[in-house]
Amino acid sequence: MEVTLARRRLQKHLEPARPLRRSTVDQGSDDGSADTPAGTPVEHEQNITVEQFYSIIRLHTPKQGRISYTREVLCELASSPVAKKKPKYLPEHPIVLEKADVLYHFNLGTSTHNLPALFGDVKFVCVGGSPWRMKSFIEYIAGELGLEDPKSEYPNICAGTDRYAMYKVGPVLSVSHGMGIPSISIMLHELLKLLHHAHCTDVTIIRIGTSGGIGLEPGTIVITKQSVDATFLPKFEQVILGKNVVRSTDLDTELAEQLLQCSNRLNQFKSVIANTMCTMDFYEGQARLDGAFCSYTQEDKQDYLAKAYASGVRNIEMESSVFASMCKLSGLKAAVVCVTLLDRQKGDQLSGSHQVLHDLQQRPQILVGHFIKSQLESSGKI
Amino acid sequence: MEVTLARRRLQKHLEPARPLRRSTVDQGSDDGSADTPAGTPVEHEQNITVEQFYSIIRLHTPKQGRISYTREVLCELASSPVAKKKPKYLPEHPIVLEKADVLYHFNLGTSTHNLPALFGDVKFVCVGGSPWRMKSFIEYIAGELGLEDPKSEYPNICAGTDRYAMYKVGPVLSVSHGMGIPSISIMLHELLKLLHHAHCTDVTIIRIGTSGGIGLEPGTIVITKQSVDATFLPKFEQVILGKNVVRSTDLDTELAEQLLQCSNRLNQFKSVIANTMCTMDFYEGQARLDGAFCSYTQEDKQDYLAKAYASGVRNIEMESSVFASMCKLSGLKAAVVCVTLLDRQKGDQLSGSHQVLHDLQQRPQILVGHFIKSQLESSGKI
Repeated sequence: MEVTLARRRLQKHLEPARPLRRSTVDQGSDDGSADTPAGTPVEHEQNITVEQFYSIIRLHTPKQGRISYTREVLCELASSPVAKKKPKYLPEHPIVLEKADVLYHFNLGTSTHNLPALFGDVKFVCVGGSPWRMKSFIEYIAGELGLEDPKSEYPNICAGTDRYAMYKVGPVLSVSHGMGIPSISIMLHELLKLLHHAHCTDVTIIRIGTSGGIGLEPGTIVITKQSVDATFLPKFEQVILGKNVVRSTDLDTELAEQLLQCSNRLNQFKSVIANTMCTMDFYEGQARLDGAFCSYTQEDKQDYLAKAYASGVRNIEMESSVFASMCKLSGLKAAVVCVTLLDRQKGDQLSGSHQVLHDLQQRPQILVGHFIKSQLESSGKI
Repeated sequence: MEVTLARRRLQKHLEPARPLRRSTVDQGSDDGSADTPAGTPVEHEQNITVEQFYSIIRLHTPKQGRISYTREVLCELASSPVAKKKPKYLPEHPIVLEKADVLYHFNLGTSTHNLPALFGDVKFVCVGGSPWRMKSFIEYIAGELGLEDPKSEYPNICAGTDRYAMYKVGPVLSVSHGMGIPSISIMLHELLKLLHHAHCTDVTIIRIGTSGGIGLEPGTIVITKQSVDATFLPKFEQVILGKNVVRSTDLDTELAEQLLQCSNRLNQFKSVIANTMCTMDFYEGQARLDGAFCSYTQEDKQDYLAKAYASGVRNIEMESSVFASMCKLSGLKAAVVCVTLLDRQKGDQLSGSHQVLHDLQQRPQILVGHFIKSQLESSGKI
């Protein structure tokens, strides 16, 4: 009875969200070529038909752990104020786009790239803000896994755009996401679609980043327990169709524990499991006194940081909340591993030499590299 | 009498926000080198003394239009719920940092770079998301102003970091800002400090970007009247010390009008002055149906876009609100000039070829290039 009622309530939302067919006018407007010469080629539009796309999909039967999502699930998630638990029924019945999917900010697409062939074997995705760092990570992990390219060439898979950089070696994908929630959110939408189109299974995703610490020796790694907002609450708020939607920012506790044990075995630097505060701004949003604007005192700043510390926060960064929220929604095992570059109770400026900071930034890479290697070893894959 | 009371209320905030002197312990922790070998050089710490820094400042008497801000102004701005008007008393008495300032995400600093010599002549700053586009803009404007480098070399001033790219030719600075409010906010904090340290005067700043249009032919340029949030209100909300602060997103109406006239004279493409909606997300935040998650129907999307249109919104992007808000706070003349790449009422995907989209992206460059040239010509500077 309750199910019937729920279905009735959701009836409106069950109509196809994507147009079954676009008119010629729509296509012209969509690709922005309405006012360009009529002969302009739009290559990938002709490469695959809807029927072909469906036939590819049908070749692959759903597998346990595949990233997929039903409309019902998403409707229910959106209507619940705080989605505390991962719904048991998340996978199965993936939404299938009626036409080729363009992952615009990656410069990849279902009709221009064979995504299952390119990415089907991905088991670990590591993401971080800086493109240079994500390139250095792929070089590092290649060495760790004995998969070095003899020419040391690791091409940027997204070379056709400057929005993000992406590298791959064996089962490991390394993707940059820029700075801040909106930037990583665009990347994650397209990454989740990529993993879905490529039929990836059992994927673990880890953000390896930098952060400001609170009450920790600089260089300490914080493995995030919960990502909290600037009022220390474990939630991510997002405006959808003009309405506030609140989502959970829980991360995988078992994965966090495994990473901590890995760090203890490595014994090269200190790691802790603690809460991470995710802010929308680096200066005023993190109580820095050295921004272009500052409307509070040193004392106000210290009060705020002390409150954060008291609530369990040990580091501050700018991407973990939406990362946790989107990974939870999609059913991906996720962790956030950030090194602290300074103790914010003692200062604001990252005035260390870029070399010193560079060395500290390698710590999450070393930890996660070690973790991936041990996981692949224990499963007999290397 | 009222002034005295206001001063008394602000007394607490008038204490120095920046520590007058940092202890040795603080310095060690600040630069993140506490656990690195003791001999690690931190070069820029030794290059300038506080006295030298002050003496540089004293050489320059305050000029009309200089970007500067007093603590009083900032305190008052922060305490007013919506700062509707630019305070008359904004310039004068710039805050002076007690030690060298590091613009970390630019890899620039007051003790490592002679900022007045490098940037003192800047009159126009153009910012945009993509580093490639900002390089292409500097090449274009160099040609327009007859300042081409015979070797066509325009070095990236921020080559030491991959966070932002910066180029300069004559009085024009071109800086990338990545995607989303947090990313442009970090850049603007450091840019405003850079302009301040370089003693720049009469600076005009223009964001040249891309956007989704509503009810406009793709390729139309929208010059932003007001930047509105996802509920169509002209405000930018930001959490500072855990509290919500609301700031105005008004832009310079005279500058917008000048740009429109410029576009009409050019007569190469259509431009309109209208409201721009600034969102935190590209997919769900802009009612797209093609993200990894989507909890609403095509009908819901069209309803939302129709409401946006009715409220005066003609395009959607992800940076204008904090750009407008920070430029207003600092007293900079600012405009947002974005081309629409598609009509969102007709589709979601940017499926046009990168060449077609690239051509459309040049339109804001052409318009702003023409505007800068005409401004410099009319003031007899070229």
